Amino acid sequence: MKPLGPIPAGYEAIDGVLAVAGQPVTHWVEQAGGTPLFLYSADHVRRRVADLRAAMPERLALHYAMKANPFPPLLALMATLVDGFDVASGGELDIAAKAGVPLAKVSFAGPGKRDTELESAIRAGVTLNLESEGEAARAIAIGERIGLAPRLAIRVNPDFDLKGSGMKMGGGAKPFGVDAERVPALVRTVLASGAQWRGFHIFAGSQALDAEAIADTQAQTLTLAARLAEESGVPLPHCNLGGGLGIPYFPGDTPVDLPLVGKRLAEQFAVLPDVLAETAFCMELGRYLVGEAGVYLARIVDRKVSHGEVFLVTDGGLHHQLAASGNFGTVVRRNYPSAIATRFGVAVEEEASIVGCLCTPLDKLAEKGGFPRADVGDLAAVFCAGAYGASASPSAFLGQGPAFELLV
Amino acid sequence: MKPLGPIPAGYEAIDGVLAVAGQPVTHWVEQAGGTPLFLYSADHVRRRVADLRAAMPERLALHYAMKANPFPPLLALMATLVDGFDVASGGELDIAAKAGVPLAKVSFAGPGKRDTELESAIRAGVTLNLESEGEAARAIAIGERIGLAPRLAIRVNPDFDLKGSGMKMGGGAKPFGVDAERVPALVRTVLASGAQWRGFHIFAGSQALDAEAIADTQAQTLTLAARLAEESGVPLPHCNLGGGLGIPYFPGDTPVDLPLVGKRLAEQFAVLPDVLAETAFCMELGRYLVGEAGVYLARIVDRKVSHGEVFLVTDGGLHHQLAASGNFGTVVRRNYPSAIATRFGVAVEEEASIVGCLCTPLDKLAEKGGFPRADVGDLAAVFCAGAYGASASPSAFLGQGPAFELLV
Repeated sequence: MKPLGPIPAGYEAIDGVLAVAGQPVTHWVEQAGGTPLFLYSADHVRRRVADLRAAMPERLALHYAMKANPFPPLLALMATLVDGFDVASGGELDIAAKAGVPLAKVSFAGPGKRDTELESAIRAGVTLNLESEGEAARAIAIGERIGLAPRLAIRVNPDFDLKGSGMKMGGGAKPFGVDAERVPALVRTVLASGAQWRGFHIFAGSQALDAEAIADTQAQTLTLAARLAEESGVPLPHCNLGGGLGIPYFPGDTPVDLPLVGKRLAEQFAVLPDVLAETAFCMELGRYLVGEAGVYLARIVDRKVSHGEVFLVTDGGLHHQLAASGNFGTVVRRNYPSAIATRFGVAVEEEASIVGCLCTPLDKLAEKGGFPRADVGDLAAVFCAGAYGASASPSAFLGQGPAFELLV
Repeated sequence: MKPLGPIPAGYEAIDGVLAVAGQPVTHWVEQAGGTPLFLYSADHVRRRVADLRAAMPERLALHYAMKANPFPPLLALMATLVDGFDVASGGELDIAAKAGVPLAKVSFAGPGKRDTELESAIRAGVTLNLESEGEAARAIAIGERIGLAPRLAIRVNPDFDLKGSGMKMGGGAKPFGVDAERVPALVRTVLASGAQWRGFHIFAGSQALDAEAIADTQAQTLTLAARLAEESGVPLPHCNLGGGLGIPYFPGDTPVDLPLVGKRLAEQFAVLPDVLAETAFCMELGRYLVGEAGVYLARIVDRKVSHGEVFLVTDGGLHHQLAASGNFGTVVRRNYPSAIATRFGVAVEEEASIVGCLCTPLDKLAEKGGFPRADVGDLAAVFCAGAYGASASPSAFLGQGPAFELLV
């Protein structure tokens, strides 16, 4: 039997069925129109933001990186909770605008911004996190052409990475941002252009669980920001410290010690150099805000035994849950937290694999896990489905189409 | 410098620009409306089918597994070239019907068929490749309820796999098909139900390049089909031998020796036992028919240097080319064949990485390859993009949306 990842706190059973927002998930499946369904809990998101506000220094603003989950009702909820948004494309900017996100609170990072995207962002008053000198020149030229002063920040490629992070965004050669040593010159170019100078975006990595490593990286980030601001010769208006806070997906993973991260950041904020005295700081979080608030529900269509192994074949699969299937950024496949939602809290009765309906051996949701005995009609649940699920999976693969989504 | 995969035969340059169907790709980009673009060559597909017809025994029918590429104009072309189609979902069945594919030539395999999918397939006269006894019971019951005799074949989980295949579909416990030893009993159940008995579907693996291994697997498949037909007590009307023929993606890969596969299969066909004397055989091919006929074109939006490494940032990425980025079924990332399309055939001038526009280090199209010096505005090309590209990638990720597609 292979271990399953840890089910996030806050999920309980009502009459043996997994419950979200006070109702069994069977109720929400009916409300949504069927399976597969991504079900997101608004309360879970609210609690997560409240925990962050309680733990982190008041001076730290919270931004939502909508790449984690661009479901419009979730964006609308988030607009009531956070201080800003980060988009990664003109497409995301459009989605945010339609969902009612105030665009003056939006920043735009991404290494391959097209001219059309730069122009629509400048027109909307969005802050551009510049990824290169070339992009800076294009943004400044577009601003001049349309007669608007662009709001420009510089994404810095830091010389360090976030230890233990699932995805390193700094440390060495990267397609993201401007190498630190070239940043002061680019700041002066931006200032000379008459653009609105917005500061730095420094993102060293994501999906880390070690609070000390996160705190050390934030300390390095502040040191780097101070040095670059000094070398640039102007105080720093804003500084986006990036994200980095991870969630437990796999067996043995434990949650980030958030109070420790907050305490260490408060200590740093207490001794900031003059050049950062007036700086507005934010963290930009995606997965940490929404990942554990989502559960993916798929209906078991077949129960079959092959050479003694039990397969629970569902109507879902990797076309909605690419990362859970082990096919997105992971080398060795490990099980996400999962369960039989319609027999939730029932003791383990057998070893079974939960698979999707696609005709490929890659389509595994849970491999050789311990579950109560499930049958056709039961619902399988995969947790940690609130981030990088629906929008990060190939939903058209094998003609399947998108899952239902519901925020409750 | 890391090696690049081998560029498929048949791609040439016109005035230094990669050409397809007698025109430079810049022409097709303009015709299609922009980049990123999946460009498919009808001639390439026609030649591939002709090569197969020439190499394989006349008795072998050719089917197209549309999961490889469901682009409707390609399906319409394929309907003029092959003898049948395989779909993997009700969604694919709808796409095939709209593209004008004759549905009586369609078979449907997939481990998680819903009742609604079974019913629409039965109504359309599609052959169902049954994946389990449970699915057989559901299909028979639906046939009785709607008063139509379903066309039923059995997908067999063989006891062997295809050596050296990129994806093993047989050998041991699998969610696909019915374990061989239980097949004869299920044949009798199907016959007793009054359904139209259509035979076996035996798929041992895919993406193999070793002709001897493919031939050995086909021999084992025929032996297994004969044994199961004998044990079932009825002659076998049809037998789908599966696919298995791969294409070269990576450095060192060489094409399948197709004449050898054909010769070996002809030898097998010459000594078939009586129970297979009247059997109609087919192979079901996807990637082999269309993979090398496609090229993915993305525009270089930025050229940047980080710590001495050159990054060519394009307007495409893993949201269209998940497999080429190394994030779909591969453990170690290797480079697909790629080139600077607007400097095609020009000597290597530098080491560069071609990356996508997504804000993730996973978004690599070619890592540290040798290319002529390219700049903003040039087109990058990734070859072997005709199969498992557009439809097998998360096109909505980071708000990007689908690529253009064009068959010429």
